[in-house]
Amino acid sequence: MNVILPKNLLAEQIALLERVIPSRSSNPLLTYLGLAAAGEDLILFGSNGEVDLEVRLPAQVMGEGRYLVPSQPFFQLVRSLPGEVVELSLESELLLSSGRFRTRLSLAPMEGYPELLFPSPEEVSGDEAFPERTALSVEDLQKALSQVRYAASNEEYRAIFRGVQLEFSGKGLRAVASDGYRLALFDLPKPQPFARKAVVPARSVDEVVRVLKAVGTGEVVLALGQGTLGLAVGQGGVRVRLAVRLMEGEFPDYERVIPKDFPLKVALEAEPFREALRRVSVLADKQNHRIDLLFQEGRALLSAEGDYGKGQEELAVSLSGTPMGLAYNARYLLEALAPISGEAELLFSGPQSPSLVRPLAEAEGYQAVVVPLRV
Amino acid sequence: MNVILPKNLLAEQIALLERVIPSRSSNPLLTYLGLAAAGEDLILFGSNGEVDLEVRLPAQVMGEGRYLVPSQPFFQLVRSLPGEVVELSLESELLLSSGRFRTRLSLAPMEGYPELLFPSPEEVSGDEAFPERTALSVEDLQKALSQVRYAASNEEYRAIFRGVQLEFSGKGLRAVASDGYRLALFDLPKPQPFARKAVVPARSVDEVVRVLKAVGTGEVVLALGQGTLGLAVGQGGVRVRLAVRLMEGEFPDYERVIPKDFPLKVALEAEPFREALRRVSVLADKQNHRIDLLFQEGRALLSAEGDYGKGQEELAVSLSGTPMGLAYNARYLLEALAPISGEAELLFSGPQSPSLVRPLAEAEGYQAVVVPLRV
Repeated sequence: MNVILPKNLLAEQIALLERVIPSRSSNPLLTYLGLAAAGEDLILFGSNGEVDLEVRLPAQVMGEGRYLVPSQPFFQLVRSLPGEVVELSLESELLLSSGRFRTRLSLAPMEGYPELLFPSPEEVSGDEAFPERTALSVEDLQKALSQVRYAASNEEYRAIFRGVQLEFSGKGLRAVASDGYRLALFDLPKPQPFARKAVVPARSVDEVVRVLKAVGTGEVVLALGQGTLGLAVGQGGVRVRLAVRLMEGEFPDYERVIPKDFPLKVALEAEPFREALRRVSVLADKQNHRIDLLFQEGRALLSAEGDYGKGQEELAVSLSGTPMGLAYNARYLLEALAPISGEAELLFSGPQSPSLVRPLAEAEGYQAVVVPLRV
Repeated sequence: MNVILPKNLLAEQIALLERVIPSRSSNPLLTYLGLAAAGEDLILFGSNGEVDLEVRLPAQVMGEGRYLVPSQPFFQLVRSLPGEVVELSLESELLLSSGRFRTRLSLAPMEGYPELLFPSPEEVSGDEAFPERTALSVEDLQKALSQVRYAASNEEYRAIFRGVQLEFSGKGLRAVASDGYRLALFDLPKPQPFARKAVVPARSVDEVVRVLKAVGTGEVVLALGQGTLGLAVGQGGVRVRLAVRLMEGEFPDYERVIPKDFPLKVALEAEPFREALRRVSVLADKQNHRIDLLFQEGRALLSAEGDYGKGQEELAVSLSGTPMGLAYNARYLLEALAPISGEAELLFSGPQSPSLVRPLAEAEGYQAVVVPLRV
């Protein structure tokens, strides 16, 4: 199999695979990069056992085959090749040449490499591995996943919370994450053709978000199979497919922790509030990052006290309801506010019960539940 | 003591102190930032026990005193203050306010804090702590130090090589560093008013270079005292002084390892050669990073072979003398070439004896000795 393609195209597109392919693995074959030909495309593929990734590039291809090349030197070399064009010749070795540089890389046998199954990019009958399909805008899916990701747990305890739950239904698509102490969700009000819940490991969510960001615009096909979420997305001549292993089980009923009645509602500009939170929290106790908020008469008073001393700052806010004093872990509050640009709405059910944080513009779809510290 | 000054001025200038002041220290007082007043200047000072640093800023100052404030929250806060002006009021506590933000920070007692001695910025009679003085351009000193720094040792073995030696003499100033396997030196042909050798710990060299880079231009006063190198440098209203603890002893005679006779001289463009070295060395053995160079008939052939396979590249070079094949640790060769922009000259005394690397333009002052690998 012989391939000729522009160096820059190859160098740009290996970045996604470079993230996924591990440098060490209990299956050493997973440290290799796959190269294959399909018609006039060069196919690059790789897997970390949790996420399988395939990138198709337009190239001049002669012959066919599937080969495994050592990914580490391949990635390093491709970025720095001297020519504008790369020539790959694959047989018993990979012969790579570009400008006056030539190299021979030894190959690994395909035997023992897992079979990678991806959803077909177009609607076809009988894609048995991925029977349930839908399509979303790349931006929407990226936003839904990246805005809730932070709330996923890092603890071994209650493993299901180490994932992001996707809920497909006739009402739309919801992404939700929680670590049991706080919760973030994003609602996309676009009716889905099937009803199902699927929990994607948070680390795999990061890879998916990275691919969606790299693609940027257009449409992404989401397809669900037995224990697998597939994605297919393409722009220009480059097409990317992913298959992500799902977690078993689903989140316990979280709806009941989302408060409904709010004696106090506050509207404020998110960014100045975050800046004040960051400043004042410098003084906060290093253990619990406690920051005190007092809302009254059109203003918010932020204060914190720790080993170094005390700090406070005042902000003008728009307030409706009963004045209230509450304490939070400043980090949790900052993380809950992070996805919000422009105006935010803070909804307080009481100093000992969960609060809701969301963009003032309801159409945004994001909301977060944060629990105050006990005073 | 009360101080008012522009936030941006303070925020910019604390960056130098932030580098030097340690976050942990066997003397906890060293983790504090010093604040003092001198006439119309605010003085900021700090030390890590090896490097003492003082920064003077023009400010509105009332009263006097010397205070120690906890550096970590101070640095964090100053960067993010909401106002354009900072007000500091120091008595039993530090009261800091800016815009609608206010904080109280507790202070540490000055007792137990080391006395910091800096050279006087102007020529005065009787600066007893720093009897030997000279002045250099900031750019020259920065270049001399930063171009040889890489060759200093990281090993405990032969501790003196963990420093950069400065040699002041009637011929000029030389900076030299070595780890016993390679050597870099920089000659500044500006006669110095005294003769002395002083070895500055490489980590302190990094701090000095950082200060010189921040200052950028102008003149720096270098002053030598008993076991201490002092520096004084200023621009605009901001003046910076350093006192750096010297190492005891001096380098063994290194002149004898610098080769004098060269059967082969090669001239080449440094950057394309470095790029080719980087590419080919991707294939090199991970243990010794061996790369083979063959110089003949106006070309250099670079090749390497390791676990992944083989790589090679050819470069056109200008060659005079006997064709020769040699092997190097690619990393050492790359580091020796790094300070050279434009054309480099490689001078080979033989495949088993030291080689010299220097800019083709002799006036540059930099040269490096690299030893070939045994073939």
